[in-house]
Amino acid sequence: MKPVQAAVLGLATVATLFAVASIAADKPSASGNASPIYGVTLPDGYRKWELVGPALESAPLNELRTVVGNQIAIDAYQRGQLPFPDGAVLVKLAWKYTQSPDFEPALVPAHATTVQVMVKDSKKYAASGGWGYGRFINGKPVDEAQHQTCFACHASRVKDRDYVFTRLAP
Amino acid sequence: MKPVQAAVLGLATVATLFAVASIAADKPSASGNASPIYGVTLPDGYRKWELVGPALESAPLNELRTVVGNQIAIDAYQRGQLPFPDGAVLVKLAWKYTQSPDFEPALVPAHATTVQVMVKDSKKYAASGGWGYGRFINGKPVDEAQHQTCFACHASRVKDRDYVFTRLAP
Repeated sequence: MKPVQAAVLGLATVATLFAVASIAADKPSASGNASPIYGVTLPDGYRKWELVGPALESAPLNELRTVVGNQIAIDAYQRGQLPFPDGAVLVKLAWKYTQSPDFEPALVPAHATTVQVMVKDSKKYAASGGWGYGRFINGKPVDEAQHQTCFACHASRVKDRDYVFTRLAP
Repeated sequence: MKPVQAAVLGLATVATLFAVASIAADKPSASGNASPIYGVTLPDGYRKWELVGPALESAPLNELRTVVGNQIAIDAYQRGQLPFPDGAVLVKLAWKYTQSPDFEPALVPAHATTVQVMVKDSKKYAASGGWGYGRFINGKPVDEAQHQTCFACHASRVKDRDYVFTRLAP
């Protein structure tokens, strides 16, 4: 084999390996759908969970958001229980907002942006206040750098509420 | 009995009747908790219903709102089924909004204001597009004048979506 042929074959092999790796990354898998650092995944059926409360994030985000919780989280909210018990899970859905075409004073959801998850496990996540974090776009976790910001922000602002921003809407 | 005694007794009787009437009005009853015109009541357990979507109403209302739906309504939304089938119920929860003390760019719920209900019954409510309306404050329906505005507004703006403003958030 001539050196040029070998080089071409080598490049082709590398390209094939990248292609295989890319296909593998697109397939659903426990590791591929879990957040960096924490290993948090999107919980099944969260869209059916009970409302905690809505919020609007003004510029630059311009998002409407709604937090829902599993039964363990909702029960803790209703009892005013802090810290939240292990097993509590909170999910925040977010959408860019747009002016309603039907009623001018209203801002309503446009396209979905992120889904953000907090999972309480006081042993597994002892280093981050007992919570594991996951931030997802189109069902896929965002990168590690973004996940490094979660705990620092929650710890600096709402440590006294067990690191949870959202209160139960009355 | 002297005239003065009779007058005092008469006043006491009237006062007693008012007191009894007042107690009766405070007790939950089908008629007392049902909306004028439509006879719609707050459905049991609606706070556990599935999210349809959030919204923000700007000035003068300054409210955050979240619509939830019963399973019949959610199923219809997911199928894109119009008109909604009989039995569909939508509930809109509303709160005045306030700036979050924990995160400046966020507007979050303050005190609850109204809860508004739409009940689909194409025969019972044939005169109002198949929907009955109820608007409640602290669990009690507001007056008839306010209920006279519901259908006219929905009919003028979203008749082509079976009179329903809120879309299912993606």
